[in-house]
Formats: sequence, C-alpha cells, structure tokens
Amino acid sequence: MAFGEYDDDKLHEECGVFGIYGHPDSGALTTLGLHSLQHRGQEAAGIVSFDGKQFHAERHRGLIGDSFTKQSVVDELKGHRAIGHTRYSTTGGDEMRNIQPFFAEFFGGGFAVAHNGNITNANSLRRDLQREGAIFQSTSDTEVILHLLAMAKNTMFVDRLQETLTRLEGAFSLVGISAKKMIGCRDPLGVRPLVLGDLDGAFILASESCALDIIGARFVRDIEPGELVIINDEGLVSLRPFKKIKQRFCIFEYVYFARPDSMIEGKNVYDVRKAIGTELAAESPCDVDIVIPVPDSGTPAAIGFAQGANLPFELGIIRNHYVGRTFIQPSDSIRHIGVKLKHNANRKLIEGKRVVLVDDSIVRGTTSRKIVQMVRDAGAAEVHLRIASPPTRASCFYGVDTPHRQKLLASRMSVEEMADFIRVDSLAFVSIDGLYRAAGEVARDNEVPQYCDACFSAEYPTSLTDYDERSNVSNLSLLVEAKG
Amino acid sequence: MAFGEYDDDKLHEECGVFGIYGHPDSGALTTLGLHSLQHRGQEAAGIVSFDGKQFHAERHRGLIGDSFTKQSVVDELKGHRAIGHTRYSTTGGDEMRNIQPFFAEFFGGGFAVAHNGNITNANSLRRDLQREGAIFQSTSDTEVILHLLAMAKNTMFVDRLQETLTRLEGAFSLVGISAKKMIGCRDPLGVRPLVLGDLDGAFILASESCALDIIGARFVRDIEPGELVIINDEGLVSLRPFKKIKQRFCIFEYVYFARPDSMIEGKNVYDVRKAIGTELAAESPCDVDIVIPVPDSGTPAAIGFAQGANLPFELGIIRNHYVGRTFIQPSDSIRHIGVKLKHNANRKLIEGKRVVLVDDSIVRGTTSRKIVQMVRDAGAAEVHLRIASPPTRASCFYGVDTPHRQKLLASRMSVEEMADFIRVDSLAFVSIDGLYRAAGEVARDNEVPQYCDACFSAEYPTSLTDYDERSNVSNLSLLVEAKG
Amino acid sequence: MAFGEYDDDKLHEECGVFGIYGHPDSGALTTLGLHSLQHRGQEAAGIVSFDGKQFHAERHRGLIGDSFTKQSVVDELKGHRAIGHTRYSTTGGDEMRNIQPFFAEFFGGGFAVAHNGNITNANSLRRDLQREGAIFQSTSDTEVILHLLAMAKNTMFVDRLQETLTRLEGAFSLVGISAKKMIGCRDPLGVRPLVLGDLDGAFILASESCALDIIGARFVRDIEPGELVIINDEGLVSLRPFKKIKQRFCIFEYVYFARPDSMIEGKNVYDVRKAIGTELAAESPCDVDIVIPVPDSGTPAAIGFAQGANLPFELGIIRNHYVGRTFIQPSDSIRHIGVKLKHNANRKLIEGKRVVLVDDSIVRGTTSRKIVQMVRDAGAAEVHLRIASPPTRASCFYGVDTPHRQKLLASRMSVEEMADFIRVDSLAFVSIDGLYRAAGEVARDNEVPQYCDACFSAEYPTSLTDYDERSNVSNLSLLVEAKG
Amino acid sequence: MAFGEYDDDKLHEECGVFGIYGHPDSGALTTLGLHSLQHRGQEAAGIVSFDGKQFHAERHRGLIGDSFTKQSVVDELKGHRAIGHTRYSTTGGDEMRNIQPFFAEFFGGGFAVAHNGNITNANSLRRDLQREGAIFQSTSDTEVILHLLAMAKNTMFVDRLQETLTRLEGAFSLVGISAKKMIGCRDPLGVRPLVLGDLDGAFILASESCALDIIGARFVRDIEPGELVIINDEGLVSLRPFKKIKQRFCIFEYVYFARPDSMIEGKNVYDVRKAIGTELAAESPCDVDIVIPVPDSGTPAAIGFAQGANLPFELGIIRNHYVGRTFIQPSDSIRHIGVKLKHNANRKLIEGKRVVLVDDSIVRGTTSRKIVQMVRDAGAAEVHLRIASPPTRASCFYGVDTPHRQKLLASRMSVEEMADFIRVDSLAFVSIDGLYRAAGEVARDNEVPQYCDACFSAEYPTSLTDYDERSNVSNLSLLVEAKG
Repeated sequence: MAFGEYDDDKLHEECGVFGIYGHPDSGALTTLGLHSLQHRGQEAAGIVSFDGKQFHAERHRGLIGDSFTKQSVVDELKGHRAIGHTRYSTTGGDEMRNIQPFFAEFFGGGFAVAHNGNITNANSLRRDLQREGAIFQSTSDTEVILHLLAMAKNTMFVDRLQETLTRLEGAFSLVGISAKKMIGCRDPLGVRPLVLGDLDGAFILASESCALDIIGARFVRDIEPGELVIINDEGLVSLRPFKKIKQRFCIFEYVYFARPDSMIEGKNVYDVRKAIGTELAAESPCDVDIVIPVPDSGTPAAIGFAQGANLPFELGIIRNHYVGRTFIQPSDSIRHIGVKLKHNANRKLIEGKRVVLVDDSIVRGTTSRKIVQMVRDAGAAEVHLRIASPPTRASCFYGVDTPHRQKLLASRMSVEEMADFIRVDSLAFVSIDGLYRAAGEVARDNEVPQYCDACFSAEYPTSLTDYDERSNVSNLSLLVEAKG
Repeated sequence: MAFGEYDDDKLHEECGVFGIYGHPDSGALTTLGLHSLQHRGQEAAGIVSFDGKQFHAERHRGLIGDSFTKQSVVDELKGHRAIGHTRYSTTGGDEMRNIQPFFAEFFGGGFAVAHNGNITNANSLRRDLQREGAIFQSTSDTEVILHLLAMAKNTMFVDRLQETLTRLEGAFSLVGISAKKMIGCRDPLGVRPLVLGDLDGAFILASESCALDIIGARFVRDIEPGELVIINDEGLVSLRPFKKIKQRFCIFEYVYFARPDSMIEGKNVYDVRKAIGTELAAESPCDVDIVIPVPDSGTPAAIGFAQGANLPFELGIIRNHYVGRTFIQPSDSIRHIGVKLKHNANRKLIEGKRVVLVDDSIVRGTTSRKIVQMVRDAGAAEVHLRIASPPTRASCFYGVDTPHRQKLLASRMSVEEMADFIRVDSLAFVSIDGLYRAAGEVARDNEVPQYCDACFSAEYPTSLTDYDERSNVSNLSLLVEAKG
Repeated sequence: MAFGEYDDDKLHEECGVFGIYGHPDSGALTTLGLHSLQHRGQEAAGIVSFDGKQFHAERHRGLIGDSFTKQSVVDELKGHRAIGHTRYSTTGGDEMRNIQPFFAEFFGGGFAVAHNGNITNANSLRRDLQREGAIFQSTSDTEVILHLLAMAKNTMFVDRLQETLTRLEGAFSLVGISAKKMIGCRDPLGVRPLVLGDLDGAFILASESCALDIIGARFVRDIEPGELVIINDEGLVSLRPFKKIKQRFCIFEYVYFARPDSMIEGKNVYDVRKAIGTELAAESPCDVDIVIPVPDSGTPAAIGFAQGANLPFELGIIRNHYVGRTFIQPSDSIRHIGVKLKHNANRKLIEGKRVVLVDDSIVRGTTSRKIVQMVRDAGAAEVHLRIASPPTRASCFYGVDTPHRQKLLASRMSVEEMADFIRVDSLAFVSIDGLYRAAGEVARDNEVPQYCDACFSAEYPTSLTDYDERSNVSNLSLLVEAKG
Repeated sequence: MAFGEYDDDKLHEECGVFGIYGHPDSGALTTLGLHSLQHRGQEAAGIVSFDGKQFHAERHRGLIGDSFTKQSVVDELKGHRAIGHTRYSTTGGDEMRNIQPFFAEFFGGGFAVAHNGNITNANSLRRDLQREGAIFQSTSDTEVILHLLAMAKNTMFVDRLQETLTRLEGAFSLVGISAKKMIGCRDPLGVRPLVLGDLDGAFILASESCALDIIGARFVRDIEPGELVIINDEGLVSLRPFKKIKQRFCIFEYVYFARPDSMIEGKNVYDVRKAIGTELAAESPCDVDIVIPVPDSGTPAAIGFAQGANLPFELGIIRNHYVGRTFIQPSDSIRHIGVKLKHNANRKLIEGKRVVLVDDSIVRGTTSRKIVQMVRDAGAAEVHLRIASPPTRASCFYGVDTPHRQKLLASRMSVEEMADFIRVDSLAFVSIDGLYRAAGEVARDNEVPQYCDACFSAEYPTSLTDYDERSNVSNLSLLVEAKG
C-alpha cells in the first residue's frame, strides 16, 4: 500500500488563472504569475499565447517550476498576450485533454479560455449542445463555454460572448484571449477572486494580487462581481452582462485558499487570519503554556491567538517541505508513519507542557487525530485544539475539491464527538459570526449573507441544476484515454 | 546539419487501417495487424477499443513494435472490438491530436473512425461546419467526418452515416466502431485497398491481406469500391450509398506501396512486380554482366528482369536495416555519406562489371544519383538503370505524401536529361502500357483508365475542390501545440 | 539567462547518512530516514541493502520523495540491513558515479560505505594508491576509503578497517555494511553528528535524531567522537581506533544545518536557535514595531528575539514553497525578480512600520540585499537586520559547500560596510561568545574551543594536507561522463 | 507471456569495435563506424574520445541510430581520436557499468579500451587481482585488462601493455586510446577480425571493412593475428608481443556474423556465402521448382544454390523489417504467431510448388520448424531445407552468445532426427570440407585446422581455464545495480 495522500486532509482550490495583454515577455511573465498561484492548483498547468498570427499552447503535468521553466517551453510561448491556468485534479479526470486553457478556432478566428470555479449547469448545457451537433473532446466545463460561443446567435464577438456568459450558472472567474482582445469576467456573485493589475502599461488579470507582486506589477482593483472587461489596444472597457445581484465572495478564500500576502476585496488575507485567531482566543480561551501552529496553514491564526491570549507562540511541530507524492508503507507495525512524512513534533519543547494547537479547518479529521497523537507521544501534558473556521459540513460546488459529504467529520459528529474522535482535551471552532467579524462585518446577515459560506451553512447561493438531479456523470465522455 | 531524411527518396503511403469485431483479444490482434501494415505509415499509430461500456484509446508516436507492445498498453485496450490506424506524417502536422482513430461522443453515443486516403473537399466542408458552430480540435480530414455525422439531418445512425459519406470527395478506405457496430467503407473509385477477413467467426477489416496472415485469419474478399459494410452481432450487411461509377484502384499500390505478399483486387503484389521487371527487360534490354536490385523495393522487379533477360541476379548493394532517424554530418569533406547509412556497394562483386540497377521508381532522383555514384566508385565498368514504373510526374491528392510537383525529377526533365542528371549509361522506365500489362490488362484504356495513375498521367479521377482553388491551408487551425 | 540559484544564498551541508541493521523493511525504512534528512542534501541519494546473499544498490538524482518511493525501487532493496546517503553536489561533480554509498567487492566479500564530511587528505591518499596500481572510478573521497581497505596490510576485516580509518584526516561520520556487519564511525573531533537509535531491536545509525522520529525509533545516544561501532547479530561493540583528542562539534549545525527538532550532543536545535535570538536581542536591541523572520531558517531565532525584546512576531515575508530549479528571466526590465520566486513581502502588514528582520547567517549578502529592498518597497519606515551567527569569514573544508572565500561578504567588509551594502538602517551579528552561551557554554575557550567554528574564526582543528598545497584538482579523473 | 525473442534463433556476435586517430570529427565518424557494425551488437554502445586534455565518454543502451545521433551527444565527443564499441548482451548482465569502452586513470594518465572477443581466463585473473587489492566495478572481462595494466611491473606504457596482453587467454580484437596513442591488437589466433584503414591520413581500426566504406575510408590491410599496433603522431609501429602460433580465424564470421560486403582476411563475405550455396547444391541437390531464401541471412547462399542448381530464385518469404522488442501474445489459440512478426509466406507464389529453403545455420531449430510450417500452410507441395553450415554442435567461448550446448539441436539429434523435428521432406547441411572449400581451402586440415570451427567440431584452439573448472560465476560481483 502506498500512502502519503491521506494525510493531506484539506479542501483544495481547483484553479488559478492569469492573463497579460501588451507585454513582449507575456509567456515568461505568465509562468511567473502561475508560479505565485501554485497554491491554487499543483497538478497541471497550461498557457496559450498569441503572437499576432498564431496561437501557441503548452500544457504540462506537474508544477510550473518543473515543467514551464525550460527555455524551450518559454520560447514557444511567443507574443504580447497570453493566458495561463494552474489546476488541481477535478472529477473530470487528469487526462492531458482536460488541461486548460481550452482553445477553439471559430469561423471568425481563434479563442482561448480558462477559468477558476465551476459551472453548475455544465452537464445540462453539454447535453443541449450535443443535441445540436456539438462534439466534445474533454469532460471539462470550460469546453462548454467554447461550444456556446461557437453556436451563439449573435454576430459580433462581444455580443456572442455576453450571450454565452448569461447561460452559465455557478462560479467562474475567467480569462480569455482572441486575435484582438483579452477578456476577464467574474460571475455575478463574485465567488472566486480576480484582480486587475498594470505593468508598464500592460494589462494583467490574476486570481490573486500575489501574482502581481511577483512580476512587480501594480495592483489596480478587483474585477467586480458580474463585470466583464474587454481589453484591446484601445484600452479596457467594462461591461455588465448579468442581472445585478448581491455579491457572495467565498469566505473560505480568507480561511485557507488564498495566499496570506494577497489583498482580496480590499482585505489582507494575513490580517483576516490573525483576526480569526484573536476572535477564537476571545471566544474559546484555554489555560495552557504554549500556542503551537499546525504548519503552515494554521500559523497566522496561531499568531493571532497567541497575541490575543498573551501566550508564547512556539514552533512545536516541524514541517518537512521536501515531500514527494507517495511513500511505500514498510509494514503494518509502523502504519501510522504517514503524518510524519510532513510533520514532526519537537519533543524537547513539548514535553510536560500544556499546549493548544491552532489549525485552519477540519475536513475528515484523520490528520488532526494523527497530529494530536504525535504531540501526545512527544510528552504534552494537555492538548487542546482551536480551529480558525466553523465546522465544515457541506460540499462546495463552486470549484473546490471537497470529499463526499459523509466523509466530512462535522457532517456526522457534534463538536464533542469530534473532540473524542480527535482525542483532544478540548476542541473549539470559531463561530460563524466570529468569522464574519474577522472579515470586517458586524455579524453574518442571515437573510442575505455577505459571503458564500455554503461549506459551513449548506446555504448555496445558486441553484444547482446538475447536482440536484444527481445525474452529473451520466453523459460525460466514455472515452478513456491513456495519460502519457 | 542533420541528414538522413533526404536519402529517403520515395513516395509515402500515408496510412494503414485495421478493425476487428467479435474477438476477446481485439486490442492485441489490432497491434499485430498494424505491425504488419507498418510499411504504410511509421510515424504514429492509434487504437480505440470498446469493451461494452467504454471506449479506450491509445495513441503513440513511433513504431507499433516500440510503443504498442507493452503489456500495460495492450491491457488498456479492453473489449471485443477495436480499430487501429498507422500513419505517415501528413501536412496537418505531427501533433498528438492528429493521430487517428478520431473519437467523438454524439448525443446517441460514441463513435471512433480512421481512414486511409485523403478527402479532397475537407477544407470546404470544414469551413461550412465552422459556420454552423462546429469546433475543430485537429487539422485532420478525419475530424470532418465526425462533425458531418454530428450535424447530419437523419435520425438513424446508418442513415446519418450514409448522408455523411456521400458528402465526401476523394479517396477513403475507412473503418469505424460504435457501441453496437463496426463499419468499413471504400470510396466509389476504390482508390485505396480494404479487405475483409475472418478469424474464428470474428470479422476483420484491413488495408492489406498481409494483416490477415499475421494473425492467422482467412482472407474473405476485397471490400468493393463504393461499398459500405455494417457489422454487428447479427453479421455483415452490405450497403451501396454512392452513385455507381467505374473503379480506379491506385496502380502505385502494386508498384511500391503494398507489401509483396499481399493479395489486392485478386492479384499478388509480388507477381505484378516481377511481371513489371519482365516487361522492362523486354522493352528496354541492356547488355550487362549482372542485375542488381536497389534494395529492398527494387528486388522483385530485379528478379523478374534477371529471369526475363537471363542474367545473373546478384546482391551488389547491401542494405543496413539498423537505421535510426538522422545522423550528424561530420563535416563538408564527407558530405555524401547520407546514402551510405542505408546502403553499401559490394566492391568485390561489382569491380570491372557492367551492371544494371533495377529500382521501383524515381521521385526527386537525388538518391538514385548517389547510389549510381556509389556503384561507380565501387568500380563498375558501366551502370544502367531500369525503373519499374513510368516517370512520376504529378502529385497525388489521394493519401500519398508527394513532394511539390516541381521537385519531381520527371516533371522537369526528359528521360535523357534524367539519365544525365543521374549519370547512368542508360536509363529506361517501363511504359504505361507495359505497367498495365503487368497488372493483367491488355493495355491502358485511355478513355476510362482501369486504374488511378494520376502520378504518371496527371489525369485525376475526381474533382479537386480544395486543391483547385489553392486555399487549402488558409483556414486550418492556427494553434501550434507542443509535440511532447 | 536562467536564474533561481543565486537567491539561494546559504551554506550547504553536503550529506546525510542512515543505516539500519536487523529489520525486514530495511530498504523502506532507509528511504524514510533519508527523507527526514533531505535538508542535508537534495541533489541525489543512494541506498545499498544486503539480503543475506547479495547486495542491492539504487542511486538516483533528485529528492527521495520523487525517486525512491516507487514500489519497484523499494522492492529492489531487499534484506535486513541497508545504508543510505543523501547529498548536495560536491566539487567532485554530479555524475551518477559519484553518488554514495560506494560499493566494492574485496577478496573477502563486499562492503558498502557512505559518509558525511570531507576527508582532507583524500587527494594525497589517492595519489599514493594509484602508484600502487589502484584504479579510481569516481572523484569522491569515499572511494579512497574502499581502496585503503582493499590494500590494507592486516588480515581481519575489523583490523583492516581500523588501519584504514587512522589514515584519514578531516571530518567523517560514516556508515557501512558488509555481509556480516554494520559499522558506524565519527572522526576524533566529531565534527559531524551521528546518532544511534533502536527500533524493536534493530540498530539504527543516522545523522540526526529526526531520522529516528520519522520511523518511530527510540533515540539511544550520540555516537561519540572517535568511536567506531561494529554491529552484528551478537550486538554492538564499541572501539576507539584513534588517539584521543578534545572534541570539536560543528557549531554551524546548531545555527543552520540541522533540523530544529533534532537533539544533537544533548541539545535541542530549536532551543539553541531561540537562545541565539534572545542573546541577539540583548546584545543588539533595536527600537522597532515588529519582528519579521526571514523564512524559514530565521524563524526560531526571530521567535527568541521577539520574546527577548517583547515585540510582536509577525509573518511579514511569505515564502512560496513550490519552487522548481530555475526560471527564465523575462527581460532586463524586471531582472530583480529572482528573490520573489521564493519570497514576497506582505505590504499591508509592513507599510509604515519600523521592522527588524532576523536571519540565521549572511553568506554572499546578495539575497539579504534583495530581501531588504523588497521590504522597503513594501513601505517599511525602517529596516533593521539581526543575524543569528557571527560573520561568516572563512571556507569550511569539513563537508560544507562554501563559496570561495573572497565571495563571503564578511571576508571583505566590516559590519558597517555590510550594512551599507545591504542597505539596512542597522545591522548586528550575535557575538561569538553569545553564540557559545546559546549553545550552553559560559564563553568560547579561546585556547581549545569547544566547537569547530572555523567558518567564523578561520581556526581549523585539523591540518589541511591537500588544501595547503593547493593541488587538489590536479590528479582527479580526466574522464567527463555524460550525466544521463 | 511476451514473445518475440524466441524466434530469433541465431548465434550472436557480441561486439564490434572502431577507433580513429587524427581526425577532427572523430566522435561523429565513430558513430558512423559503429552504425555500420550494428549487426555485431544491438543492445548498447559506448564511445570515448580524447580532446588533448580530457577524455569524454558516452554510453547508451539501444541502437547507434537512436542514441548517438543527437547533436548534443556528438558534441560531447570532442577531440581528434576516439574509440567505440557496440555490444550484444553478455553473461555479465546489461547494467550500464558493463558498457564498453572501459576507462581508467592510472598514475601515468588515462586509458580507454574496448574489445571484441572473450578472455577465457578473466575470472582467474580477476581473483588474483582482487587478492592484490584491486577493486572491480563491473563484471566485464575488459576491466581485467585495465587492472593488469595498473599493476604491471614495467615502467613504460608500451611495456606494461605487452606484459598485460601476454597474460590474456582467449579471443580478443581490441582498440584503445591514451593521451598520446591509439592501440590495436588481435590475439595470436586472430579469432575475431580487425582491419586497418586510412581517411585522409587519419588511422582507423575497425572490426570489418564495411565500417571503412561508410565513412569513405580506404581499406589498408587486416591487422594480423598476434599483432599489436601503436599509433601516434609519428605514425604506426607494429609489435609482436605473443609467441607465434598458427592463426585460426572464426569461420562462422563468413557463415553469418560478418556483413556480406566486408572483406576479411582477403575474402569477400558475399562471395564465400554464395560459394557455400553452390557447394551445397552440388553436395545435396534436390528436385524442386523454386529456391527460397530464409531472409535475410540465407539470401546469398540461396542465390549461390539457385545458380548452382539452375533453379529460379524467388522471394517466397517476406520479411517485416519494422520489428520492435517483444509483442504481447493475445491468447493460447494463436500462440504460433511469433515467427509471423518477422516473416510471412507468399501463398500465391508457393501454392502447389516444391520448394527448397536455404538458411545459414540451425541453432535450436525452433524457428526453422515454424518457418517450414508456415511454408506448408501456404500450400507448398514439398519443403526441403538446405543449411549453409555444418551442424552447430558446441558452444563458442570466444565472444559469441551461444545457447547452452544441450539446447543446440545438432548436439542431441542426428540429421534425420532433425529433419523429423523440423518436418521437412529433406534436410542437408554443407559438409565441413565443403565449407572450407567455399572459404578457399582445398579441405580442412584436420591436424591443424585453418580456421576456428569449434562450434561445429568442438575442437577449441585455446585452453579454457575458467570454463573447464566450471567456477565461472562464483566470484563475480554480488552487487545488483538498478538498470535505469
């Protein structure tokens, strides 16, 4: 038996996007932008550039830093505009043909598109399109966008694009390039982030502001929920193709997905995380000797907790960053080795101490349980656990890889039962209002919540066309292609 | 400078196809069938099988014997039916996405198809389909077939298929599988071969009968020009979707493309080739000491020539079969090394002798010139050259990779000029009537020729929709994808 | 120009070693042990096991987690004993043949050996051995050990081994296995660490105690400086082949090389690092708003500094852990992008603040300068820098990859000049006595220092036979082998 | 079960060697030379060049045309002298470390060496050398030569070399380069070939003259049995280090190993093969309609047979040259497919005819049996078999990969029994005297045969030190190294 994955007990953002218009190094800058968005997807990446005559595509499995940094790869990505995408594996499978951006050549020219999110009526649209004669090559929802564009009734590209966008449901922050334009769009709820930047006059679109920082670009503003921007040599035009509704940004982006140094919707992610820790210290204090973060995602909240509780912050768990895919389990006698591939407790520091561990979230709970055991084995007198988000109870259908609902610990246990399962002396989650306070609200508006918090509340801000009917796999492509 | 290609001065068949219906080892048998058709295309190959539930695809660059013989590859190709395709590179480029068979999932289910030939109105059809909203992923004419099927007006699959086939122009011997059927079809002229075989009740379709021999299958008959066969669990049904016209099988298949052990249209290829040699000896005798074949393609005609002329047949040129792609040229001083990578003259045998070399055809003439020089360098007293086909003067648009017309030696030189260029003491080609006689006819029927001989006569048996207007590249996909 | 390396401005430990005797999963456990020692060398690794009849070797470039975790690799490493080695590139070059462990078959049987350190008279020994007829296959000092063993005068293996060890100068913590034994040895100064552990009766040797933790083994004790342990089925025998001298453990292991959770020579590395930070806060306080670690190596000292100075500890620099080898530099206009591949300043946190950065050491100073500039660009009002070691002034010849002395910033600048170069408002290093205090001493004993601190003091505890004469490259192998 | 190998029922020459001194393109020319010697070994190849300062080595598995033709590989092989080696797998195993040429750096400088043959006392020498302290890295007999050189008593290189050579037993045609010289040597019996050539003043050594032809070099002469040539900037010096004995060239080189266009010991290989066919037709005529060669190795003898018997020579068996390593056997029902991967009978030609097949030799007989069956299945009225060598009864210990003696069909069956086993209407081998006549002798001199014909006669021209005692594997290295 191989192991190594099960200890990766986190929700996973499925994508990061990047686009640049008007720079001679568009290919190289896109690789750098995607590198800084690597935390949003590590399995594969793709870039399409346009050189004034032709589109150029590169798609590779693995990290940007491994596959996209050869001179030969960057040299292929000619031109002054490019878009890129980095992805975590999706239910669509990890075939090469599912790596974005997707490209199609229409009667009027070529178009490449990539998005972060999930189109919740993609399968219904796909069925309709097939009935009209469309042929699909992938199982990705992104291909649906291309077919809608190809079959749109309008004549002009921008009209066809708006016609297409209004048929989509769900969450999507997308970027695209044609022979003449770059486009960017956020769904009307603005579930996923998308920001606009500027580098010496070149326009940049990126999932997070950290992708602007890496190339020295200036942060201009967030693309607004429901906004479609069309960028060409004349500049940027902003359109509003959707009916206006109240925005619902994903609050879990603050909790875990986004990078701490990013600014999203006017807030610094690190600030929000520290504030959650402070809320948590106030809501659920505990009488301990030291505060230990579960590295690395629990660290900002742990700093906030330690400052709020006036307790020493200590690195009691050391993380090994040199982690490959999977390790071979030697034998049954040492089967609990999994968690130690990434983490080790510092016995000398912990021995005899009462400790509180701070983590960002609990998904299946299996890793938390192992980490707690590891800390106990290192001699802790007491182990308390504080979680910088409310209990994760429901699946996300907006571009996050969530385990089946029944595998979410909080969907089948009370907090007390969870404490027992994880074997901690005490367990507490930040309250939903505490979380909203940390994000700058007075409290959650239960009528029309300010954020999408469906993973905590199961209140979904859109209809779930294909997921309600539970037929989501039935008409996906039956072709099984080799992965090599 | 790398070299190694230029000495490969031959026309190239672009494809071989194979299909099997009703055998538990369909995947493995298809690899064997394609292996025996490897002479029809060496650059890449693909196989799609159907296991009753799903289609499985494998596409690889290189030889069948290198890429398709791993257990893991064959294991993927589950099911009782499969089709395969082996190809030489086409103008469409050698990207992975151009490797056949092509697959699409329609509203009614999946369908995979591959063909040997060339659809001469593919670009026009493509333009029309794009106008209707079709998105193309490849530059292959085969994808056009899938889109025509997807957008066909009829309801039933077989009707849609016939509707599709009648819109195609050019040459095509195609095989396809759906969830219920295998189909095979030859264009109304029957330019390319396609035979039907039987292996313990399983139906087999293959470009040549040698693909039946390798798996121990029985040759049943040729699929007839204009015939569409539909094979399912009930058996085989033969349809005739096309208007009946006189057949025009490609006579160059006898000259060079097909394997000598294949039976095509009732004739044995080796027999025809030997007969050409005998015709040639009668038409253009020469007073020499020995007959030397240019290996390996000139060998059967050389045997026929030697028997006809009552001269000794000798291996005066040794072929090195261990040839890789290209070699590095060491320096200018030894730049004529190219031809020696494949051939070496046997000096001891040749020295002081008058020799006649027999080859199947002359394309650019560059290799012939080098071989003649090599034989002279080895001490031949006289070197004569006899060619087992008429002068190759015109391009083929029916699935053969021909150089640009102006590169064909015979298109710009008389036979005398060619003899000078190649530096032989005498040069002769078999006459067109001699060729037809060797193929069993009394003579060529100049009104309605019995074969397609356009490469010799420039008389094309179909209209050349896309080639007449010279717009054939303009609307092909502009996406340049990496090859790895 | 590619970049990516220059920002890695650290000294590099060259090796980690691991050995296990008496466990059926010796191969798999050695991969895990090496994984936890990955910080000591990331370029390549090797493992040799013995199955009672045969030795089995695996050598691969890259991380353990990438190359050694395939079932097929682990399956090759049969047997109840194994040794492994992970390495950073050395001057000997990165050819496969230089990957340890080294193996030789003597008249009396096979022996595999690997070590951490550097044998400073290896080239002299090599010359002598070649004169006697020895043939070398590598440029590694480890091969010298094998030849000394092969040509030793004594009869019994243990005697030959002791004869060999006493001819070595320099630093070496070595492990070896023969058909009957496992051996471990530390040089008389004990420059590099080596610990003994126990897993259910199996003996383990490892560079650091964290390699025991990962497999759940118990820490037994340090192998002592000058100790040779012979382990076989009867148990462990301790020998003292060397003349007794005062030990000189490498103090830089505490500063940077070792993992914070390791126990070495009775001290916890994290504790020592925090204590250095506290010493530094006392010696060189500064009036700032926040303490920011240069991640990750400066973090423990920064925590100690913040606690000592009673200042808030904040993550002002975010590290991107998804870093590949090198990135293509887009163009001159953004040439300072290098450091941002790994680090980004959190502008929102830093803007307008007075900050002190804490790092472990300064080598060339180029990265420090870039990080300081990045923090200034993020809006810091003042930037101070505190270094948790004395100025690094001299090369290490004991198994550490140090730049040429003239590239060490402290070898050619005063602290004031360094502050100017790095552009900080103030710069301070911990004093040598402060460092010794943090390591538990009252002060440095300048007569016979308790540690090897040659990189700070240029006082080398051994003669440097080959380095004094500056002839170290002259008689190394002239064969340049391809790396693939 | 995979198959594909068993039908390769031939003896295999294990090596070809090439060397060039004094040409700026030495690396590229060596790749070409090895390419023309590819028939002597297809599993791996190596080249070592010397550029005046350093030696450069490239070793790769597979064909020259696949691995050595990249510009990057050739560019590495700098310098005006180089030696190369191509090999078939040996008992030593196919690890990279066994690929020749071998290199060692002695006290006096570097030396690279490669040979064709087998040193029959290598294991004894190895044991002695290990006793003296030598460490072996490979299981190849070539490494023994390097250690003998390293430990030789003489002072001067040429003296050490002669001292070394005289300790070797068996067959060896070797080439070597040092910083100053190229050397070539044939063992006193001259079992394996080695020729001298000239290319514009550069000296060339090669196993066969066809390696001179490919680069346009002039054949100068055979290196004589027992001759050692020393080539340097002053020219060539010929030495005779061995006691003079009568030469015994391997007669099987004429039968099968060498290329038909090579001149060896003054004879043309094609001529000898045709002459064998003519002898065979005279010795064992048969009343048939056509003569069919078993391609390709039986072809020259079949031409000679047909001319001698005045029968038509016809290509009744077509060979598929596109053969990869192994194919997956689909199922038991078609298990005899193996032979058809390479060969197919031409039914149309064979049907109803009486045929004689001509092949060069019978080893295990399994392939002959399958080919005969294939010809019968194609409808032959009678099938006779004529073999262009005497029955192969004994193992070769001089550099040929022979099956275990008991697997040689002729070692356990009479000719009649073999005919039954192979299922032919008649079977005949050329007589040993007929073979000697074809090679230009009046008859075999049974006292002191003119050739080594041990595979037919079991009369070995040397003592077989290591093979007599049957201890040949016992003290080879116990290290099992991964192959990748």
